[in-house]
Amino acid sequence: MRTRNSSIVIVFFFFFFTILALSSAYPLKKKHYKPCKELVLFFHDILYNGKNAANATSSIVAAPEGANRTILAGQFHFGNIAVFDDPITVDNNLHSKPVGRAQGFYIYDTKNTYTAWLGFTFALNSTDYGHGAISFAGADPLLIKTRDISIVGGTGDFFMHRGIATIMTDAFEGEVYFRLRVDIKFYECW
Amino acid sequence: MRTRNSSIVIVFFFFFFTILALSSAYPLKKKHYKPCKELVLFFHDILYNGKNAANATSSIVAAPEGANRTILAGQFHFGNIAVFDDPITVDNNLHSKPVGRAQGFYIYDTKNTYTAWLGFTFALNSTDYGHGAISFAGADPLLIKTRDISIVGGTGDFFMHRGIATIMTDAFEGEVYFRLRVDIKFYECW
Amino acid sequence: MRTRNSSIVIVFFFFFFTILALSSAYPLKKKHYKPCKELVLFFHDILYNGKNAANATSSIVAAPEGANRTILAGQFHFGNIAVFDDPITVDNNLHSKPVGRAQGFYIYDTKNTYTAWLGFTFALNSTDYGHGAISFAGADPLLIKTRDISIVGGTGDFFMHRGIATIMTDAFEGEVYFRLRVDIKFYECW
Repeated sequence: MRTRNSSIVIVFFFFFFTILALSSAYPLKKKHYKPCKELVLFFHDILYNGKNAANATSSIVAAPEGANRTILAGQFHFGNIAVFDDPITVDNNLHSKPVGRAQGFYIYDTKNTYTAWLGFTFALNSTDYGHGAISFAGADPLLIKTRDISIVGGTGDFFMHRGIATIMTDAFEGEVYFRLRVDIKFYECW
Repeated sequence: MRTRNSSIVIVFFFFFFTILALSSAYPLKKKHYKPCKELVLFFHDILYNGKNAANATSSIVAAPEGANRTILAGQFHFGNIAVFDDPITVDNNLHSKPVGRAQGFYIYDTKNTYTAWLGFTFALNSTDYGHGAISFAGADPLLIKTRDISIVGGTGDFFMHRGIATIMTDAFEGEVYFRLRVDIKFYECW
Repeated sequence: MRTRNSSIVIVFFFFFFTILALSSAYPLKKKHYKPCKELVLFFHDILYNGKNAANATSSIVAAPEGANRTILAGQFHFGNIAVFDDPITVDNNLHSKPVGRAQGFYIYDTKNTYTAWLGFTFALNSTDYGHGAISFAGADPLLIKTRDISIVGGTGDFFMHRGIATIMTDAFEGEVYFRLRVDIKFYECW
């Protein structure tokens, strides 16, 4: 009888171990999640305005009826699509050595405030930050201090990763320059 | 001997429990999947046609050569890109209190039928339906009664969620108004 | 005592089995990943150039200021958005029976090389290759021989799948025709 009880104790120990293992794989509470990988990067967007062809890294390519492609449209730029190829840096200095390029588009999609929809990829090529692509998609309500968008996929060193990017407007100068800080938090690493 | 048999029985019980636990996490048969969370929502799109500036929630911003941006292009609107910021409601009434905004774009991308490619986000802000963003991407063959697109990411209350959205055209009026019913089924909740 | 030892041995056997099972679900080394499903497909893009309306499967719909929509823009086509509905074939022959359609858009987004950002869906409808949609997103540096983009979601036979697509330019003829080979590797199957 004593032997059997011991066995039961041992079995229950492994039972709870199993539960624990499954729990950590499928956690129940949001607050417990910790990123499996984190990166903080900046990117710099210089929008073409008809005069800065040499420096511009982005361009308006679509606009609503009545608007042109060198001046952002009225009504909070509603209807403008901009395409960009922006340098990514590890600090807030536009002139730091880039660790990659942020490539994609943003669409101003609201008539009564500044909101954009972003689809873009970080193409990283750096000893310290890795080699590979991280792709992002989601709505960006520009006037909110920190806003989250989804990391929908990764390749190379970021193979199959998923996560959340927290975006902050780190600086902007009129309608020509803005700098975004992107806190990349991967919650699914491979 | 009897004691040992009992232990084996107990161990096998937990063995099968473990298999069961892993099976439910990695099911083999498609039919067994059940959503871990479901939402049914509607959104309403009023396309700008040159006369409805006050009410319009979307606008044509790109068109093929020869077409303009106040009238959808011929050939099944092939080549039109529309940008939208549409109210989301919990029923089919345009005038119900919105629980959020559907923001993004659709592209008519077929010359011989109505097909669109959608990239958009539900920005929800509601006590009942949650706070956070759900991002969608995929092809929408408009003439099929129910069509599935992918939910590629979520933030806030929908942190890291993935799933499938089944879209139905609930109503449309000429080329100015349409209403989509979206059955959101998350199969990966965190 | 002997009985108890036997039980411990059995319990440890299942302990290691559990570890093994969890390990295979969460592998630690990138090199060990094997796709759970693979497809190799081709798609064919014929860009409208003002003269090929009957055959064209894609069209320029947006361009930077100063460019039009029948000729790709200078500066590596920076700022052009093209919308497409291209046939998918199982070999490199444009005239093979299509197994589906590749639908979506590409954006040329770099001024000093050929890079595009792709958002598109394979709508497959084939006994051999399946029925359902596979959605892709990511940057495509065209001059590199093989480049990876993310598979962000699937429906139908590709329900909830994720993976990586390796893209190769299989052929191109001037600025009118190109053919891409797409090696689809799913690492997350349901």
